[in-house]
Amino acid sequence: MKKTGNADAPPLRIIPLGGMEQIGMNITALECADSIMIIDCGLGFPEDDMYGVDLVIPDVSYLVENIDKVKGFVITHGHEDHIGALPYILRQLNVPVYATKLTIGIIEHKLEEHNMLDLVTRKVITFGQTITLGDFHVEFIRTNHSISDAAALAIYTPQGIIVHTGDFKVDYTPIYGDAIDLQRFGELGKKGVLALMCDSTNAERPGFTPSERTVGQTLNNIFEAQKDKRLIVATFASNVDRVQQIINTAHRYGRKCAVEGRSMVNIIQTAIELERLSVPEDTLVDLDQLRNYPQEQTVIITTGSQGERLAALARMANGTHKKVMIGPRDAILFSSHPIPGNEKAVTKITNEIFQKGADVIFQDAHVSGHACQEEIKLIYALTRPKYAIPVHGEYKHLKAQAKIAAQMGVEKDHIFLLASGDVFEIRGDKADKAGHVQSGFVFVDGLGVGDVGNVVLRDRQRLADDGIMLLALVMDGENRVVSGPEIVTRGFVYVKEADELLEDIHMLVDDTICEFYEKENVGSRSRLKNNIKEAVGEYVWKKTKRRPMVLPVIMDID
Amino acid sequence: MKKTGNADAPPLRIIPLGGMEQIGMNITALECADSIMIIDCGLGFPEDDMYGVDLVIPDVSYLVENIDKVKGFVITHGHEDHIGALPYILRQLNVPVYATKLTIGIIEHKLEEHNMLDLVTRKVITFGQTITLGDFHVEFIRTNHSISDAAALAIYTPQGIIVHTGDFKVDYTPIYGDAIDLQRFGELGKKGVLALMCDSTNAERPGFTPSERTVGQTLNNIFEAQKDKRLIVATFASNVDRVQQIINTAHRYGRKCAVEGRSMVNIIQTAIELERLSVPEDTLVDLDQLRNYPQEQTVIITTGSQGERLAALARMANGTHKKVMIGPRDAILFSSHPIPGNEKAVTKITNEIFQKGADVIFQDAHVSGHACQEEIKLIYALTRPKYAIPVHGEYKHLKAQAKIAAQMGVEKDHIFLLASGDVFEIRGDKADKAGHVQSGFVFVDGLGVGDVGNVVLRDRQRLADDGIMLLALVMDGENRVVSGPEIVTRGFVYVKEADELLEDIHMLVDDTICEFYEKENVGSRSRLKNNIKEAVGEYVWKKTKRRPMVLPVIMDID
Repeated sequence: MKKTGNADAPPLRIIPLGGMEQIGMNITALECADSIMIIDCGLGFPEDDMYGVDLVIPDVSYLVENIDKVKGFVITHGHEDHIGALPYILRQLNVPVYATKLTIGIIEHKLEEHNMLDLVTRKVITFGQTITLGDFHVEFIRTNHSISDAAALAIYTPQGIIVHTGDFKVDYTPIYGDAIDLQRFGELGKKGVLALMCDSTNAERPGFTPSERTVGQTLNNIFEAQKDKRLIVATFASNVDRVQQIINTAHRYGRKCAVEGRSMVNIIQTAIELERLSVPEDTLVDLDQLRNYPQEQTVIITTGSQGERLAALARMANGTHKKVMIGPRDAILFSSHPIPGNEKAVTKITNEIFQKGADVIFQDAHVSGHACQEEIKLIYALTRPKYAIPVHGEYKHLKAQAKIAAQMGVEKDHIFLLASGDVFEIRGDKADKAGHVQSGFVFVDGLGVGDVGNVVLRDRQRLADDGIMLLALVMDGENRVVSGPEIVTRGFVYVKEADELLEDIHMLVDDTICEFYEKENVGSRSRLKNNIKEAVGEYVWKKTKRRPMVLPVIMDID
Repeated sequence: MKKTGNADAPPLRIIPLGGMEQIGMNITALECADSIMIIDCGLGFPEDDMYGVDLVIPDVSYLVENIDKVKGFVITHGHEDHIGALPYILRQLNVPVYATKLTIGIIEHKLEEHNMLDLVTRKVITFGQTITLGDFHVEFIRTNHSISDAAALAIYTPQGIIVHTGDFKVDYTPIYGDAIDLQRFGELGKKGVLALMCDSTNAERPGFTPSERTVGQTLNNIFEAQKDKRLIVATFASNVDRVQQIINTAHRYGRKCAVEGRSMVNIIQTAIELERLSVPEDTLVDLDQLRNYPQEQTVIITTGSQGERLAALARMANGTHKKVMIGPRDAILFSSHPIPGNEKAVTKITNEIFQKGADVIFQDAHVSGHACQEEIKLIYALTRPKYAIPVHGEYKHLKAQAKIAAQMGVEKDHIFLLASGDVFEIRGDKADKAGHVQSGFVFVDGLGVGDVGNVVLRDRQRLADDGIMLLALVMDGENRVVSGPEIVTRGFVYVKEADELLEDIHMLVDDTICEFYEKENVGSRSRLKNNIKEAVGEYVWKKTKRRPMVLPVIMDID
């Protein structure tokens, strides 16, 4: 059992550029001599105070600077937080993408939408297969997750074997395909695993995550109880196995199914094409065709289970969906749990559904796709790593796994909680943080990638809180005010009710200008603007306890 | 058992102005002939999209219009969502306020802060006492809740008895005072209750809410396990009984306590003065004095258990608290559950605490202050009302109680789900909705009450999403552009990277002006501004898929 790195080989550097101390935006680089490989390339979702930001992608400056070394992306599975940034990052870093069949299928669909399919090399890898990326050899190992074809990686590096679990759970009775290849984890453990990078998402939860199959029984009970209603089942677009179970149950109860929501339609189509979803004949129909069947013999499977404002379910609930009207003969099932932060959005939709007279079914028709504590322990027991590097989670999740690692016998100073951008280096029998590279969030807003930065965001926050007050003046060459100040506000106060305040500000601006040019004959316009900004800002704060952005604009004429 | 209204008496109108289809902002008017009484006068908290709004208070236009009829406020208990709007509403509607001892104490503190103590008549009422407000007689009935001195109301009206539970739970072993006066509910039931207005907050939850006293045992276990650490316990500022139990446990373990967080300090002080909280000698000390004791012999009781950004706990967690530094020798206990919508804020603080090396204790040291289904059933069983009007809750909560009411034998068409502003009328054996009065949210932002309306809010949302683009021009009497257009953006795009875009817009504005004055010799400036706005807006959308607010300002000179 050789578990010490090779002091004569070049050091191995593990560099997470996302996914640490956050949920989502998973991406980690491994570097050794002249080779860099990248594990996953995921999206993040904007925090509440990232106003107007559509998506968040990782800052990969470090990789772009070292582009000659980069051999390719290895993708563990087809979820947005692992593949979603690819279309953006591949533009800067066009290297081959390696993944299992369904994962490549979903990536290809995404690249097609971005008109990039012809530009990118993709390779489908099967479980057990090993690929070579420079100094790295990467073996794909079957795992279970809430999407089929999820892989863990065994990465053979000059320093030793690194095992990365990807997102995983242990499901002995999965819906599609086989159970996680625990034997292989055991074999690798026997060979000697240098470091384990294990999914921390559920590391705070004791016990085991139930099998996806357990949801089938719950679905059965619900279909049995709701025989006189149309069923609308909301779940994650990418949970192909869940959709499979809903379709199976619908078929059993003689109901026709339609799928609604663009992202779900896309993934289901890909899954059918790649034989990851099998649909009994005549079960799946177009949404438009559903009206040809009695309402209680139909099921709509839809996106929007997280309360997403523009998703199909939200539109059904608030009455703006073009094809589906919710009413008293409907029962809506959330086959999902709200992700933290989405509770209120889900509640809003629930209230709207109730107000339309439909039922909401709260029965527990969901299981997680992530390993709980006992499953994480199992992976530690099988791999017996020298070093533990928990991945995928906020600090509290990483820390919860660190505790498990210690319980499982990993020495305390061999457990490392990394932040994104940290460079972790292993060489011989030494391993530790060895620096930091640029990392962080790049914001996608509309068509712009990276042009909304912290300054723009801070301005948006200020504008959101207290609005803006614009003060426009025309001045001539003698520093006389020829026109204005004209005061325009937006998001500050309803102007018709603020006459007095605006009059005061008008006078204050006049006074400020007089004073300014009394003191200095030729003052710069930007210093004058600053003085106006300060005087008006202070006055407004005193009168209203608000801090609108004050924006003086001085137009010069001869 | 007389349960029919009196056809010869004037009709009774029940008019909720808040608290229906929402959590918080509880206020309900009862009107009969020339008498109006008001139950509670609470705050609402701004929704996520109410940018910059500090507080939400009810629109009481209807009451102001009928001010001659208004006899007074009857307040059920001292929580913000029942008393918080008083300082604002009393300015428009200065009538006496009636409540129990602690409730009046807390209200007085609030009025003092607003410099209104001398302006408002307050009356302390004891349980069992009945007051007369015009045609109404109101009896205060002891209940239990997460604050002492909570009352239900029996309101004797010309049409019959209305029972309003306030916020309540059934606690046979409360920390302070006696258990809820179930006998009185029973007596009233025997007399005949016309309508029951019952708290719906927990109507979705089966079973019973445990006694507040059960938290004591959990606290004991935690103190026992954390003997070598300082304990920081976060809970609701107003939960006096919880604070009592923390203090008791601290005393038992020989620890000194300090209270931190302005709102908690205020309420604790009031509770001690009014003998609703009893502190063992030498247990409570000032925060500054805590440093005189070994860290593991101290406890800090603090606000901020909901992750409130400016509360004491948040400042401790992010290292900006002036007096308390969190470190590895601290354990932080959340004696609370996150209210829906606050999960992410609580998680953020948890991560920060972990990063400082302190422990967060997740043990369940909290119980709700609201009745679950079995307790609600108990109140229905005792009062046997003719009509059921669920109060305090979102639509789903009201509906959940409606289900319970039906199970408890209330006829289905005697159960009414009201919205705020609905006028519900009872006369003789008829009862139904009979119109609608003005109601809604009034926003408090800084010192302004009501001056931020929907227009301002919509502007703030737009500004938050995509920022603003200002186009300033100077034009002369001949419609010639003398200076500009100057383009200034905020929150749109980082200008240094958008030269080309801005140049294009510059040209586009010039073209738009030329075209405008070619067509019509004397066009109005506002139509020109509109044309510029549309042309630029469309161009920017095409190029960026963003919709900044476009604001043309034209300054005229001779």
